[in-house]
Amino acid sequence: MQDALLALTNYWTDRGCLIVQPVNTEVGAGTYNPATVLRVLGPEPWRVAYVEPSVRPDDSRYGENPNRLQTHTQFQVILKPDPGNPQELYLGSLEALGIDVRAHDIRFVEDNWASPALGAWGLGWEVWLDGLEITQFTYFQQAGGQSLDPVSVEITYGIERIVMALQGVDHFKEIAYAPGISYGEAFGQAEYEMSRYYLDDADVATNQRLFEEYATEARRMVDAGLPVPAHSYVLKCSHAFNVLDSRGAISTTERARAFGRMRALARDVAKLWTQRREELGHPLGVVTPPPAATLPATLPEVTAPATLLFEIGTEELPAAEVTRTVEAVRAAVADKLAGTRLGHGEVSVHGTPRRIVVLVDQVQPREPDAERTARGPRVSAAFDADGQPTRAALGFARGQGVDVAELGRVEADGVEYVGLARTEAGRGAVEVLSGLLAQVVGELRAERNIRWKDAGLSFSRPIRWLLALLGDTVVPVAVSSLNSGGTTRVHRTDATPVVDVPGADGYVEFLARHGIDVDGTVRRERIVAGATGLAASVGGSVDALAEAALVDEVTNLVERPTPILGGFAQRYLDLPAEILTTVMRKHQRYLPVRDDSGALLPHFVAVANGSCDPDLVRAGYEAVLRARYEDAAFFWRADLETPLAQLKTGLEKLTFADKLGSMADRADRIAGLAGRLADQVELADTDRATLARAGELAKFDLGSQMVIELSSLAGVMAREYAARAGEPQAVADALFEMELPRQAGDALPKSAPGALLALADRFDLLVGLFGIGANPTGSSDPFGLRRAALGAVSILRSAADLRGITLASGLTAAANLLADKGFELADGTVEAVREFAVRRYEQQLLDAGHDHRFVNAVLPLADAPAEADAALAQLTGLAGDAGFGALVAALQRVRRIVPAGTLPGYDPAALVEPAELALHEAVRSVRDGLGGRRLGLAEFVAQASALTGPVNAFFDGVLVMAEDEKLRRARLGLLATVRDLAADVLDWQALGTALA
Amino acid sequence: MQDALLALTNYWTDRGCLIVQPVNTEVGAGTYNPATVLRVLGPEPWRVAYVEPSVRPDDSRYGENPNRLQTHTQFQVILKPDPGNPQELYLGSLEALGIDVRAHDIRFVEDNWASPALGAWGLGWEVWLDGLEITQFTYFQQAGGQSLDPVSVEITYGIERIVMALQGVDHFKEIAYAPGISYGEAFGQAEYEMSRYYLDDADVATNQRLFEEYATEARRMVDAGLPVPAHSYVLKCSHAFNVLDSRGAISTTERARAFGRMRALARDVAKLWTQRREELGHPLGVVTPPPAATLPATLPEVTAPATLLFEIGTEELPAAEVTRTVEAVRAAVADKLAGTRLGHGEVSVHGTPRRIVVLVDQVQPREPDAERTARGPRVSAAFDADGQPTRAALGFARGQGVDVAELGRVEADGVEYVGLARTEAGRGAVEVLSGLLAQVVGELRAERNIRWKDAGLSFSRPIRWLLALLGDTVVPVAVSSLNSGGTTRVHRTDATPVVDVPGADGYVEFLARHGIDVDGTVRRERIVAGATGLAASVGGSVDALAEAALVDEVTNLVERPTPILGGFAQRYLDLPAEILTTVMRKHQRYLPVRDDSGALLPHFVAVANGSCDPDLVRAGYEAVLRARYEDAAFFWRADLETPLAQLKTGLEKLTFADKLGSMADRADRIAGLAGRLADQVELADTDRATLARAGELAKFDLGSQMVIELSSLAGVMAREYAARAGEPQAVADALFEMELPRQAGDALPKSAPGALLALADRFDLLVGLFGIGANPTGSSDPFGLRRAALGAVSILRSAADLRGITLASGLTAAANLLADKGFELADGTVEAVREFAVRRYEQQLLDAGHDHRFVNAVLPLADAPAEADAALAQLTGLAGDAGFGALVAALQRVRRIVPAGTLPGYDPAALVEPAELALHEAVRSVRDGLGGRRLGLAEFVAQASALTGPVNAFFDGVLVMAEDEKLRRARLGLLATVRDLAADVLDWQALGTALA
Repeated sequence: MQDALLALTNYWTDRGCLIVQPVNTEVGAGTYNPATVLRVLGPEPWRVAYVEPSVRPDDSRYGENPNRLQTHTQFQVILKPDPGNPQELYLGSLEALGIDVRAHDIRFVEDNWASPALGAWGLGWEVWLDGLEITQFTYFQQAGGQSLDPVSVEITYGIERIVMALQGVDHFKEIAYAPGISYGEAFGQAEYEMSRYYLDDADVATNQRLFEEYATEARRMVDAGLPVPAHSYVLKCSHAFNVLDSRGAISTTERARAFGRMRALARDVAKLWTQRREELGHPLGVVTPPPAATLPATLPEVTAPATLLFEIGTEELPAAEVTRTVEAVRAAVADKLAGTRLGHGEVSVHGTPRRIVVLVDQVQPREPDAERTARGPRVSAAFDADGQPTRAALGFARGQGVDVAELGRVEADGVEYVGLARTEAGRGAVEVLSGLLAQVVGELRAERNIRWKDAGLSFSRPIRWLLALLGDTVVPVAVSSLNSGGTTRVHRTDATPVVDVPGADGYVEFLARHGIDVDGTVRRERIVAGATGLAASVGGSVDALAEAALVDEVTNLVERPTPILGGFAQRYLDLPAEILTTVMRKHQRYLPVRDDSGALLPHFVAVANGSCDPDLVRAGYEAVLRARYEDAAFFWRADLETPLAQLKTGLEKLTFADKLGSMADRADRIAGLAGRLADQVELADTDRATLARAGELAKFDLGSQMVIELSSLAGVMAREYAARAGEPQAVADALFEMELPRQAGDALPKSAPGALLALADRFDLLVGLFGIGANPTGSSDPFGLRRAALGAVSILRSAADLRGITLASGLTAAANLLADKGFELADGTVEAVREFAVRRYEQQLLDAGHDHRFVNAVLPLADAPAEADAALAQLTGLAGDAGFGALVAALQRVRRIVPAGTLPGYDPAALVEPAELALHEAVRSVRDGLGGRRLGLAEFVAQASALTGPVNAFFDGVLVMAEDEKLRRARLGLLATVRDLAADVLDWQALGTALA
Repeated sequence: MQDALLALTNYWTDRGCLIVQPVNTEVGAGTYNPATVLRVLGPEPWRVAYVEPSVRPDDSRYGENPNRLQTHTQFQVILKPDPGNPQELYLGSLEALGIDVRAHDIRFVEDNWASPALGAWGLGWEVWLDGLEITQFTYFQQAGGQSLDPVSVEITYGIERIVMALQGVDHFKEIAYAPGISYGEAFGQAEYEMSRYYLDDADVATNQRLFEEYATEARRMVDAGLPVPAHSYVLKCSHAFNVLDSRGAISTTERARAFGRMRALARDVAKLWTQRREELGHPLGVVTPPPAATLPATLPEVTAPATLLFEIGTEELPAAEVTRTVEAVRAAVADKLAGTRLGHGEVSVHGTPRRIVVLVDQVQPREPDAERTARGPRVSAAFDADGQPTRAALGFARGQGVDVAELGRVEADGVEYVGLARTEAGRGAVEVLSGLLAQVVGELRAERNIRWKDAGLSFSRPIRWLLALLGDTVVPVAVSSLNSGGTTRVHRTDATPVVDVPGADGYVEFLARHGIDVDGTVRRERIVAGATGLAASVGGSVDALAEAALVDEVTNLVERPTPILGGFAQRYLDLPAEILTTVMRKHQRYLPVRDDSGALLPHFVAVANGSCDPDLVRAGYEAVLRARYEDAAFFWRADLETPLAQLKTGLEKLTFADKLGSMADRADRIAGLAGRLADQVELADTDRATLARAGELAKFDLGSQMVIELSSLAGVMAREYAARAGEPQAVADALFEMELPRQAGDALPKSAPGALLALADRFDLLVGLFGIGANPTGSSDPFGLRRAALGAVSILRSAADLRGITLASGLTAAANLLADKGFELADGTVEAVREFAVRRYEQQLLDAGHDHRFVNAVLPLADAPAEADAALAQLTGLAGDAGFGALVAALQRVRRIVPAGTLPGYDPAALVEPAELALHEAVRSVRDGLGGRRLGLAEFVAQASALTGPVNAFFDGVLVMAEDEKLRRARLGLLATVRDLAADVLDWQALGTALA
């Protein structure tokens, strides 16, 4: 292992890095070393590399866990500014470590980094070596709350993992640290003892006092204007906090306060450092930005129609951004072309993680010329009585730069104006495209963007090259410091990673010959076909439909998919299947293989990128899965040995949201709220008992190691652990069901206790977060409130036995309970959430294909979605019914004539005409029939159809707007009564004339 | 610089060292890393190397001092067990750093290391590169209070110094840390800011609380049985202490308590670690000691007289040990040879730092045979009446292994015994020498010894080879794991460092041909002659007599002296000459060069070892002297800018001795005591004022940076700084004089205030340290109490105006003052010190060549050494005087006859004989003449000579022991009166018959 550190040190020294020593106080990561966190600030250049033993008390495992250590070894590199080829440099460092980058599957997989405690974040990747995360690679955007200019590249190697992979060992203790001495022999005792300290023996009161002392001393040094000692105390502070945390001694309020203090200190340290460096005149100099790209003085011309090829070459985009960017570029190119007169054929856009490729057929060599007419004053105003040009005409002519005599006439809307017609010459295609494509690139934006080099370019990941060919002519495009050319980059590990592109035609095939499938559908088919075949070879199958999202993601993680079949030891099948598949999907993006019965087989299909040594890569894939499964098995055993009550205690350490207490507080509220909701419905005694017990245990599994590690297994593990701890199956099921539905289309709770807990969970979440102003905005929904609202609606729609609960009643109960617990909510919270939920419901109905008028018609009932569903079903069923149609038409007539604000009720004695008396009778009879009850649509229609005839007869025979005021009022009152009889049933207005 | 670290890392990795990271908490030295201080414990092997940024708050200089940093970089290597050639490995590492070890002067100069706070110590060297200390090289003997077995080799490189030398820069900030980036650019700001923290801004109360927290947590972890976290808290403790210390916030009691706590913790951590490793079964294995050397089954024989050559090859011995060992070996060889019958000629022994060479002329090839007779029972008891052998005779014969018939007769003291005469064959010379020389080696002991490999060998430094030749025959000698051979080792940098020795004859010349002068007198002559010549070349001279001690030392630092003339910038001559010469001598062992007037010239002579590139080495010598002078100039300027009172405040930080307060307390006592002593004498008012002011300032210069750095300048700097601060010259002189005499033969105070302060200083020191039981024992006198006592005596002997002060009165005053200040002293302290001082005085007189009987005779007067001196002088003057001789004889007659315990006084009326009446009259007359005064010897003799005749007449005519009891009593009383008249004057008994 020490050879690995030495190899990296030598490698990065040769690439101009300063080598420094680890910080001489405990830190959780190399990032905290002042050589990173302070040096990335400001304009000075900086290249550094160092080893950093990183102390994470929470990862203490007494040295028992094969992959987890309280102190692991990071190797940290900072390149400031970005040298332009940091990924290539990084791959070189892997070669220096003895890793054959051609044989292995090395991937840059989206992983953005943020440290709220440091006020720092960046965009980047985790780097996978045959599925094993070996490095964090980040473009550092902000530190100490300051935006960074220039951006720094941070490369953090996880040395133990890399070395374990290189040496093929399964436990960190087995690493050969130096010749003849293992990691365990060298550091095993320290690992055990420091774990003991962090988990069991550190004195809590002492560390609390230390935290205070450090924070105070840090503040004092900030006040003294000394950022270096201040930073050192911030680090000590942070470590003391971590010790307390691993001892389970951080309450919610303490956590929030501690983070706030550390963040403020980090911000002040950063500010001070920046000031001091400025005062010192930036001793290391100032980074000069790369020169802006420029266009040649003359652009080439083409003479015949040709295909346009435009490739935007990037570093690995996040999978979701590939799809999004393909669409955005397609729209941008099409729109912008439409804004020109350049003739062209079809626009097609493809994307891979490393390139967005635009192909436009039949681009014409030039725009045609165009006539343009400028309109001046009216002719009548342009010439005076003598036919001499007026000042208006003279002014217009001057403005156009012509003599007044050259003005002509144009007509518009029948009026004659003076005017000037000009011929606008069409531009050459290259000229048009040069500007247009530069705009396309400059306007690229992703969900989160790197501020790249200058304000002119800002995208998800760096853009490294532009390829622009019209036929075989290079189209000069200049964006920021990038100039387009006639080359592209293929796989980095190819013998010739940069290749000349002979021309635009056949580029897709050209790339294919270089091992790149630029068309996503082609990649997807390759994956599905390959996976299916491989699974079949071991008597299984891959459910491509169920795994569609994963397949989509994998499609955009590679440029040429190479599916590989791997396996794992049979014994892991003893673990719950959800654990196994979750690990495969979430951590590894492996596809599970199942037999005909749907049971897991000890196999998986993973997808490598391009060519590699499949046996080597398979072994790597299998090793990393084995390590993950070992981890899971470790958690599984550890969790099973822990009483449920103790697991639940762990929730006190988990912050829910700053002003809403810990996760334990929330679980407590959910249990209480479920109880109150239960009072709104009828519940069997057994269910009531189940609910009570499940409430006590609510979310206990969030305190289990398994769920801390794999949060998507929340609920699943609760069910497993509860059952194995001897809880009744109903309780175990309720604990699982309370997490349902986990996403759109997921199963819903089946039992009443499960449904009540699930509702309580979502109502508390919604009301709580809206109540503190954490509403979702735009596309940002960090707490998953849309999903929660939809979930609540879905449950209410499905649970026949919970009819007593409405959105309003449930949300009000949640708000009351929060208030009872002392949490403050914003005014109008319940109504805002109700409205938010109704909108989700509406969208759900529309997405299901319902007629939007029907949907709108039933929305007034959405507070009880099941009722609205019923009404919608009936409405849909009645849609072809003539009687219903007549009724609707009659009611619409009534609504149209009755002015808004007209009150129902009338003096029957004032009525005089037979038709109005008949309607009066019909109204009375229907009202009696309805009996003041709120009815479903069908029942209402059955009763109210009796009104159709009398209403129509009334309108045929009676003049509503009688001159006699008393009579008019009685007639309007009668009609208003009809209107209101129907009012609660549907939004008749929304229904419009759909059925009329 | 990072290349240097990398080069060392690579070098030591290739030599099987584990590479670890620096500790992640602040430490003062790489030794504190658990990879050293814990791993050297116990029997497990361990080889490690690492970088350690070492934080020493006290060395903070805001980055201004060119050579001193609050954080400097150590590179640390531990080799456990000793690989047998650590010095050679070390030299290899220097070559790896690009240092041409053949061209440079590289030396291993005695420097033993100890950390009382860690309970750790070891023997070793500082390594000099052209006079620059670049490495500490230690055989680690003890850590955490535990004796180490096996011993570890610790090599600590001071990286900044090495790199400054390699790069030829004068300020650490100018080091090229990495290509294009200087040390100052990379770390200058941190150096400044951390200096600010350590010197000015660290909050004292905070760090005090941190110290407490850390110490408590360390203790808790010890109690929890976790040495690793406990050690980490001990380190934090130590750093907090250092911060407090650099902030000047450690009081004496706190310092003592803090050290005690840390030492106890370190001891407990070490114990716990050792236990844990044992419980873990010593995971790294157990060091196996090297196999013991053995002798061949048959030893060679020689047939003719031959020269014996025996060389004990060592690593560099301390200079003083060379001389001592030469003598010890000479005595041992001579004694042991005398214990054999082996004939031989002259034994001569020579020594250099690396070898002790024994040459014995004319060793005979064998011992002669010898007759030995065993004596049995008397003949009378050996045979019965029948002439048959008795059981006694049979038993004796059996015991001798012969038949009874073979017994002969021997006579002793006139009695006849049975006996057996045997011829004991002489052993061959090789056999004799083989055992004898092994004993010589095994019995080698130095003042401090390394317990080396096994209990059989223990010496100042490792013994690496034995060369033993009798003529040209190898004498097999086996000691510990060492076998003798026929080779020797010459300079390590020679092309052939190990050479065959053809034979014993001409070995001195053989070595000379290999560049080694084994004879110390030859080396000394070379040095003196070389230095004289070189000094003359610049018009100066070297005072070889005044520098004798230094020349002696240098003689034993090299195997072949190569004097080199160097120079320094004229401007440094502005500094006081004592500073310049002290730096030259003490730190560098350079000889100062002076002009005819005795003024310093800007030159020096230094002595390299063997051949080297003189220009390169000279440049190095000059650079290191320049750096030292820069340091001194920095201190000089800094001190001059600091008010004396503030310098004096610094004394509060200096512990004097654990139970005697700080140096400030001591200075305060000295001032007070000097005042009290002044009351015992007559003092002019001006002197009194001088004394008062000098007392206020007493020892202030111990708080100056110069004296902290160069403690031997204490007093000198006081005089300089006081005078420059405008104090009266008398005060400045008194402050200088109070430090006199600094060693035997040094000047004595001339002024009364100076003498009083000097006396007070020594009385306080003696009484204080005896009072707390810190008496010197054996050869150990760490506080220099012998020197102090001699100093006090010397002052009392010389200062005519201080006659009122005696040892008793001065020491009593010191004891009273200590008691007044609340210090507790052991019973009998004053008397013990007085006796100790008298013994020193006695020795001083004897060393001056006085007759020991005269010396003893005046010792009763030694309480006032000046009086004793006078008496001694008179005694010596009277030695040839007949009258005095007669008086002495008469007095001795009196003393002989008067029984001890006889009281003086008698009844004159009882006297009857004329002679006794005459004596009675003479006594009365002399007594009246003496008048009850205490007289000097001469005056006493003048008076008392009148007794000579009457005493002699008395003895001639009177029988003292008269039968009449009353008469007898009167006569004895008369003689006792004579005896007592003389008693106070001298110890007549001691005088014996010297003059009789």
